[in-house]
Amino acid sequence: MLPSAPFYAVEWIRERNDRMVPGRVRLLDQTQLPVRRVFFETVELATIRTAIRTLQVRGAPAIGIAAAMGVAAALQYRTAPSGLALADVVRQLADGLADARPTAVNLCWALERMRRTAAANAGLPPDAFKERLAVEAQAIWDQDAAACRAIGRFGAELLKDGDTILTHCNAGRLAAAAWGTALAPVYVAREQGKTIRVMADETRPLLQGARLTAWELTQAGIEVTLICDNTAAQVMKEGRIGAVLVGADRIAANGDTANKIGTYGVAVLARAHRIPFFVLAPTSTFDRQTRDGDGIPIEQRASDEVIYGFGVRTAPENVAVYSPAFDVTPARLISAIICEKGILRPPYRRALRLIAHPSNAE
Amino acid sequence: MLPSAPFYAVEWIRERNDRMVPGRVRLLDQTQLPVRRVFFETVELATIRTAIRTLQVRGAPAIGIAAAMGVAAALQYRTAPSGLALADVVRQLADGLADARPTAVNLCWALERMRRTAAANAGLPPDAFKERLAVEAQAIWDQDAAACRAIGRFGAELLKDGDTILTHCNAGRLAAAAWGTALAPVYVAREQGKTIRVMADETRPLLQGARLTAWELTQAGIEVTLICDNTAAQVMKEGRIGAVLVGADRIAANGDTANKIGTYGVAVLARAHRIPFFVLAPTSTFDRQTRDGDGIPIEQRASDEVIYGFGVRTAPENVAVYSPAFDVTPARLISAIICEKGILRPPYRRALRLIAHPSNAE
Repeated sequence: MLPSAPFYAVEWIRERNDRMVPGRVRLLDQTQLPVRRVFFETVELATIRTAIRTLQVRGAPAIGIAAAMGVAAALQYRTAPSGLALADVVRQLADGLADARPTAVNLCWALERMRRTAAANAGLPPDAFKERLAVEAQAIWDQDAAACRAIGRFGAELLKDGDTILTHCNAGRLAAAAWGTALAPVYVAREQGKTIRVMADETRPLLQGARLTAWELTQAGIEVTLICDNTAAQVMKEGRIGAVLVGADRIAANGDTANKIGTYGVAVLARAHRIPFFVLAPTSTFDRQTRDGDGIPIEQRASDEVIYGFGVRTAPENVAVYSPAFDVTPARLISAIICEKGILRPPYRRALRLIAHPSNAE
Repeated sequence: MLPSAPFYAVEWIRERNDRMVPGRVRLLDQTQLPVRRVFFETVELATIRTAIRTLQVRGAPAIGIAAAMGVAAALQYRTAPSGLALADVVRQLADGLADARPTAVNLCWALERMRRTAAANAGLPPDAFKERLAVEAQAIWDQDAAACRAIGRFGAELLKDGDTILTHCNAGRLAAAAWGTALAPVYVAREQGKTIRVMADETRPLLQGARLTAWELTQAGIEVTLICDNTAAQVMKEGRIGAVLVGADRIAANGDTANKIGTYGVAVLARAHRIPFFVLAPTSTFDRQTRDGDGIPIEQRASDEVIYGFGVRTAPENVAVYSPAFDVTPARLISAIICEKGILRPPYRRALRLIAHPSNAE
């Protein structure tokens, strides 16, 4: 079951019904939302890299999918005498995307999965090899959609009819293959006949909450109220919020969670107001190699995103700006982590070790 | 002692050296900062009212001063046979400004002071009466400047050389007659040879932190770093912040404090990180008539300030927006209230009753 609204953040477009290759990656250019809904298609690795770097595609699961599909798309136009030679090409292509953004672990996870698939299928002839890699990229999409659907079902168990949830940034359909992570329970609850309302932090500097979350929920006919980030404490104080639901860019082995800057503050506020704070993410976001939040690399964004918010200057030129793209919420502030395997409760280390073990990470 | 930088948020411009009247109110149009520094002069009550409503002049002390000067300026062109008749005019003029903005109590306080001065001087001939009212408006300016200077001295006692403080919105020179409230200790500490650095929340939706605080500190050569509101928790977690200093729009009898939306959240975050949270305001901001924060009226702002924040649309049209201009920080989260009389420590009720008694409110 997939949502019926006419957009996906990223998808594979095949030229023929019976084969994945030849095919193209189709992206919704999220930098143009909510004013314009512009899709573009590409088979160029450089275009995918730029799309990831400039946030035309963003959200940890969607970044991983776009990267995997980008490798498969670029691969189909490379010529080599054997699958073995093409596996080298896959490694080069993957290396070309691995550092496009540093924090979302799904990027590395998806590229590693493509590398491993290449290695395991190096005995295939070139055409079959290319087809196999495209199938793998699509499998990542399919499994993410299924994972998000499962997250939605588990998460919906935590919501009561009539609840209003607060979310930060965008962890919805625009951030994943289909249902999204943090917003999946809202979509599933609606199917179950529950009314769930959403308060969306606008999420400076790039306003993913205003531009993306408010847009996708409005498209879906779900009631959403937009607030400035600094208003989250007030709506909690007023007793409006039943739960906070956020996505994740990387979850360390102890449950510490990197997500959009501001998430940590919302978690502190939720604790102070005795509101449950839930992190929702597929297991592809779990990073068993990183012991705790201190080991998660945090991307710094350019000061102009703050000084020239949206084309006009709103601060003194050359003023110093501190603009990390993410922060880390310590595990102790997280009431539960919801993944496709179920609802994890603290302490997280043991459950995460079992679930995120490399051999079953897929 | 007054700051030497060549701007005041509001001032009285006399046409002759030896008399206050004829005179004009000169305002710095803060909606055009930081791109343009535009001053304008007026003697029209309607222009002052518009300036207050559209935030060309803002900040609780500056609003009170602008209102008092607006009454004095408009009064000088009214003809009446006696001071008694002009006192009626003062009441009408004051009534015309009283509801320009609802939360800052300084507006009502300054207008009431003009009404009382009018009543007490109704025996004067018209010209002397007009002069007396203009003198009173200037006295409000002078006393605010002196109060802010005293706040700066008391506040500077709380700061150590090398401290970085966090502030929210603008409670600096642009918000008061001269030194500002929350930023006054920073200016005074600098005179004392201490280096105090400032982190400024940009303060959505109208970005007073980015447009005004960053600008006035840059003008003064004080090191300032701009952050998005949602980054305050992170800089606290990183151990960068020695204290939070904010202004106030109204302080109720128990110490509950209304200030720019987002202040409450910063106070919760400061408590969670064991960082002292200081409110700095002149006694003209104390409202003895309002028992606690529940009694403070909170202005709601238009949704377009959030949806069209930067001149371009950044959210779906017609999306619901919740945009209160202020929130209330409960007294229990305030480490100290610093006014021109000294440093008040909790519990506040008794100290505030003594200091804010109507008979010595001036």
